[in-house]
Amino acid sequence: MAAVACGVDVGGTKILAGTVDASGRVVEVAGRPTPSPDAGAEALEDAVVAAVRDACAGTGPLPVGLALAAFIDRSRRTARFSPHLAWRDAEVASRFEQRLAVPVLVENDATCAAWAEARLGAARGAESSITVTVGTGIGGGIVLGGALVRGRNGMAGEFGHARVVEDGPECACGLRGCWELFCSGPALLRAAHARGLDAATAEAVADAARAGDGAAVAAFEEVGRWLGVGVANLVDALDPDVVVVGGGVAATGELLLAPAHAALATHVVGHAHRELPPLLAAQTGPRAGLLGAALLASDA
Amino acid sequence: MAAVACGVDVGGTKILAGTVDASGRVVEVAGRPTPSPDAGAEALEDAVVAAVRDACAGTGPLPVGLALAAFIDRSRRTARFSPHLAWRDAEVASRFEQRLAVPVLVENDATCAAWAEARLGAARGAESSITVTVGTGIGGGIVLGGALVRGRNGMAGEFGHARVVEDGPECACGLRGCWELFCSGPALLRAAHARGLDAATAEAVADAARAGDGAAVAAFEEVGRWLGVGVANLVDALDPDVVVVGGGVAATGELLLAPAHAALATHVVGHAHRELPPLLAAQTGPRAGLLGAALLASDA
Repeated sequence: MAAVACGVDVGGTKILAGTVDASGRVVEVAGRPTPSPDAGAEALEDAVVAAVRDACAGTGPLPVGLALAAFIDRSRRTARFSPHLAWRDAEVASRFEQRLAVPVLVENDATCAAWAEARLGAARGAESSITVTVGTGIGGGIVLGGALVRGRNGMAGEFGHARVVEDGPECACGLRGCWELFCSGPALLRAAHARGLDAATAEAVADAARAGDGAAVAAFEEVGRWLGVGVANLVDALDPDVVVVGGGVAATGELLLAPAHAALATHVVGHAHRELPPLLAAQTGPRAGLLGAALLASDA
Repeated sequence: MAAVACGVDVGGTKILAGTVDASGRVVEVAGRPTPSPDAGAEALEDAVVAAVRDACAGTGPLPVGLALAAFIDRSRRTARFSPHLAWRDAEVASRFEQRLAVPVLVENDATCAAWAEARLGAARGAESSITVTVGTGIGGGIVLGGALVRGRNGMAGEFGHARVVEDGPECACGLRGCWELFCSGPALLRAAHARGLDAATAEAVADAARAGDGAAVAAFEEVGRWLGVGVANLVDALDPDVVVVGGGVAATGELLLAPAHAALATHVVGHAHRELPPLLAAQTGPRAGLLGAALLASDA
């Protein structure tokens, strides 16, 4: 099938653009490293434009959806703030529309991933789903009745900064005790270090855990337990059909999901009197963001 | 206008039935004390039937909605569990339909209150609202796009048992560190006692605070701060247009809401880059439960 839209995941380290057909298949991908925030917004925009042009080289102009690790306004045109990207209250969609001469929308990357999972992934067919992405931090999205919950500001699904520990450590967001301090790649690495494992990255902790290292497995159990505790709070509020866990840390599968499920099963209120939602690994992988953004651009 | 439905709030201490017209006005009310759970389900059912017959004496049979402090299943026919009522996995709707010979539905009382507030109260006209009821515990409901969020089990909106303190005190629900341990009538009383105020009830703390007692005001500041912290977690997830606070403790108005608003304004993620929802006192008062139940029965 012919590509109908181009999605772009603009992450903190790399930009990944891909064209997507009407069935949700990724047809062509192209990438660029993400310029440092110090290089300014123009360098970032140049890199995104180059990735889009590469991905669309074989198809001609397509509507574009950008998945950004940023607060996006409800109109899906403005990036309000991001700790990792150079835009501040920037009319991102208009700028790219001028340069690319196609319709452009922007959306939060985890929201895009939640939409990809609801349309094509682990939550396909569910009436309601929560997707939690666990990577550098925690992002997410909520789909109810076949539609994304957007919110007053377009910021629904920002699960990572819910307070789970009173007087907890300070978070980069300025708050204290945020969920993602206890459940994320950096949290995994800290948990491993606290148990004496000399690992340089969260991926190294995952490799050690797969090889049976006790400290690494225990670090996953700690971070997975926190995942289950935080998901239980969301299940109390929304009682969804399905909870999907995506993001880099979740790519480790049962290492993270088994302890998360155990904690979920004991922390949801009234767990003895209800069906718990399944806690499923995301299926759309590292392309979830670009895929969701392309689906949104195609539907817009 | 003529009454179109009868709502019944079956609380832990009293049963309040009321007929409601198409505009949402309560036409006639009748009450009974709630029999002790030890008296069994039949005594409870007798009391509800008597209250409904009294309220409907002038109008003849009407569809009935029961607002229960209980987990209700998604079909709105079965009460799965309640700490304060005698039903356990009981087909409540069928039993009352046999005795009253009218259509009957049941719904969680806080969910009914949320619906009353969305239709007729402080959230009227809002696209999305969260209602949090603060009384003996915390209940609540979510309305999105003009509809109640129900959930897989019909249990959405159970906010009170979200964990806000790790390794916190044990809750009657069996979990630890639940939000309602820090934000409820009993929490207010504990906070007042901890400050040396000799009060017998939460109402007495409210009276003392209104009279300017420093310990009572400080107790409200503590409980109000916890209200704001917990609401901030919900706003992170749902980014609603409006948050409504109802229940007995919220009847104290700004004593509770002012510190809650201050905490909300500093605990929502990215508060500098978004509009915060207003935190509004509920408008439908102690009849919120019966009113919401009657509206649901009328629409069913």
